[in-house]
Formats: sequence, structure tokens, C-alpha cells
Amino acid sequence: MRSVASDGYGETGMKENTARNKKFHKDTFDKTTEDRRQKVIEVAIEEFASKGYSATSINDISKKANISIGAMYSYFASKEDLFLSIVNSADILMEKILKDISDGSEDIFDCVEKMLKTSRKFALDYPQLNQIYLDITTQALSHMSVRLSSELERVTPKLLANLIQQAKNDGKITKNLDERVASYCIDNIFMMYQFSFSSDYYKERMKIFLGEDKLQAIDQVEKNILGFIYSALGK
Amino acid sequence: MRSVASDGYGETGMKENTARNKKFHKDTFDKTTEDRRQKVIEVAIEEFASKGYSATSINDISKKANISIGAMYSYFASKEDLFLSIVNSADILMEKILKDISDGSEDIFDCVEKMLKTSRKFALDYPQLNQIYLDITTQALSHMSVRLSSELERVTPKLLANLIQQAKNDGKITKNLDERVASYCIDNIFMMYQFSFSSDYYKERMKIFLGEDKLQAIDQVEKNILGFIYSALGK
Repeated sequence: MRSVASDGYGETGMKENTARNKKFHKDTFDKTTEDRRQKVIEVAIEEFASKGYSATSINDISKKANISIGAMYSYFASKEDLFLSIVNSADILMEKILKDISDGSEDIFDCVEKMLKTSRKFALDYPQLNQIYLDITTQALSHMSVRLSSELERVTPKLLANLIQQAKNDGKITKNLDERVASYCIDNIFMMYQFSFSSDYYKERMKIFLGEDKLQAIDQVEKNILGFIYSALGK
Repeated sequence: MRSVASDGYGETGMKENTARNKKFHKDTFDKTTEDRRQKVIEVAIEEFASKGYSATSINDISKKANISIGAMYSYFASKEDLFLSIVNSADILMEKILKDISDGSEDIFDCVEKMLKTSRKFALDYPQLNQIYLDITTQALSHMSVRLSSELERVTPKLLANLIQQAKNDGKITKNLDERVASYCIDNIFMMYQFSFSSDYYKERMKIFLGEDKLQAIDQVEKNILGFIYSALGK
């Protein structure tokens, strides 16, 4: 597993938050040492991922990070702000990855293959961020999505629909296809695939569907998933 | 919205729990009046669905249902048992619906159409149960799945894979298809579709993918989703 704190949550990540006009931490947090920032974020991610948002307290994080509760509240106004700061940084990280896919894709087929492989890779590289993401989609935390109003969920629909449209124009796939519905179906497959490596519940579900033996040959599974999608696109 | 307490949680639902050798309530709960049972379950569903498992307390449920905390603990040993009692009843309800689909399906295409329509219907009929389901899939509640060890997740994979195998044998679809991977992809589409009517987060996601106008013509969207899947099956 890669260090989550080093990729999206250090100096760079937080500066980019500001650049996007979304900042959930106070200025004091920018001014403290990087070690301290990383410690806070690392412990917070651990706690939120394993216990879920509701069962996590700033107090626990403060104790485990060995940082006074007073300091914690000088960095973040509330538990919600600390949580959103992490989710927002994860969004930025995922947007970067999607931009790389977008820039490096030849056509819809190439793009779909890259997205599928990235779904699994992102889940395995950042298991805790993926667990936090599952939390955010539940109804109890729905009031927070409004504060995030992430661009992230807009990137994939546009990317997929444009490439499908282009393939239709080029005569590479059937013109009968509705590109928006097709994009939605493809992303549904990918999201659940990503979830399948993110929580025990979804891991077990995938095992039941595919069987233990197939999971040992994940490259073949991915080939078959791609085959399913290519065929749906009428390739 | 239908009354959730009347369908799976009255006398019948609880008796069936026992029949499956899974019972998360104490005998005292069977012996109290049906009105009282319904009140407890109704309030518990409301609380768990809106606040999530962790943020809900037996105390709140007891107050809102106007039932003493002593009586609550004479019915359920713990908050976890009350929660699992509800999830288990929802599983039984969903299994019944799936059995009807299974019994009434001519072939894989008919079955897929029925499952798609049922995904939306189930989400709209039982919004709170669907919200509770989202909670169960998060990592923080993963220890509970073990206690449930539901048969539910086993019904769909078997049903879809058998019908795809049959269609292959009958020469109705391409023999190249891996029936287990195809079942997994189809169910991924359906689960996310069901989620799309279950929490605000997923509702917003669907709206971004499909656009406000398409959502006004949901029958057409469903036709297009079916078209995508039929084409993937090589019909």
C-alpha cells in the first residue's frame, strides 16, 4: 500500500485545495510543520476508514496523533471539516489520475481498458480512501456532498460520452447507441469493480459471482469484462 | 412509499427469520402485541436509515417509539441485534422478490428486463431499507456481514449464470461469453441503478450521467440500458 499522506495530502495537495477555492482547514494548519500535518491526516484517514465518520471522534484522532485537542481545533473548525478536507484531497488525486487517462487515451476502447485497470489499482493503492468514499455515498452523510460539490463526478461522464460520440462519428461503433446511457452503464461496472477491492462486503460479493479460481486469474477476468463492454458498444 | 413495517416485519417476517435459523430478537418480542412490534421496527428503520447505524442509539429509538428502554432490551440484546433483525428481514423480502422473478422468467433477456425494473421499484418502494443496505456495505460495518451470512447474494449470481448458460446451449447468444463475468457485469449495472434511487449522492451521480431531461423519460432510459446489456450478450 502506498502512503496516502505523501501523495495528496502534503504541501502540494493542500495548496491545490486552495486553488480550487475549496479549503476545509484553517490557515494555522498551513503554517505548522509538514510532519505534523502528515501525522494528523494519516491518523484521521485511518480512523475514518476503519470506524466510519460517525463513530470517529476528533478526540480519538488527537490522542492517536499525539496532538493536543486545542491544536486540532486550531487546524479544523470541526470533525466535518477535517473529514471533508480528506475527501476533497482524494477527489483531487482521482481527478489527476482521470486526466492522465483522458490525455493518454486513443479512443473509447483504449480509455475503457485504462479505466478498468485503474479502478482496481486505485482501490489497492488507497484502500482507506476507498472505504471513506463508500461512507460518503450513504444517505446519513448526504448533507456533506453539498459542501463538496465535487467536479470529480462530472469528469468521467463527459470523457466517456465524448469518446463514444467520436467512435460513432468514425463509424467504429453502432450509431444506435445512446452515449449517455452507455457511459452510465460502463461506469456502473467500473465503480462496483472498484468497490469489489474496497470493503469486505463487496470483496465477498465478487468472490461469490466469479468464484475463487477466477479471482486467481484477475487479468483474464478483466479481459472478459472488457469483452462484455466492447460487445455492448457493438465493436 | 409502502409501509415497510407491514410487509416484512410483522408476524410473518419474524416467523420466517426463525425458519431460516436466524433470529436476532429475543422471544419476548414475539410475545408482545403486533402494534408494538411494528412501532419499534418502524422507528428503528427511520432512525437507522436517516442517521446511519453508528449515529443511532437505542435510547433515541426507545423515546421516539414511546417504549421504555427496559422493554427495548427485553426485545433485543443490543443495537446490533435490532439492526441485524431489520437487515435480515429485508433480505427475506428481497429473496422473495427474486424468487418470483426466477419463477416467472422465460429466458435471460426476460429475466434481465424484470430485474432492471425491480431494482428501481424496490428502491422507490423501500427507500429506507435501501439506505440501510448502503450502510451495511461500508467497511465499518463489515463485522456484521459475517453474522448475517445471507443467502441473498448467492441467489442472483446463480440465477443469471444459469440462464446465460442455457441461452448459450440454445444458441441464442454467443458461446464466447464467460457467464460468471457477464452475470457480475449485469448485476453491477443493476446495483448501481438501484443505488441511483436510494441516496442523494447516487441520485445526483445519475443525473450528471444521464441529464435531467432523460430522467423524465425513465422508460426510455431502461430500454437503452437493456439494449446495452442485450448487445453485450451478443443477442
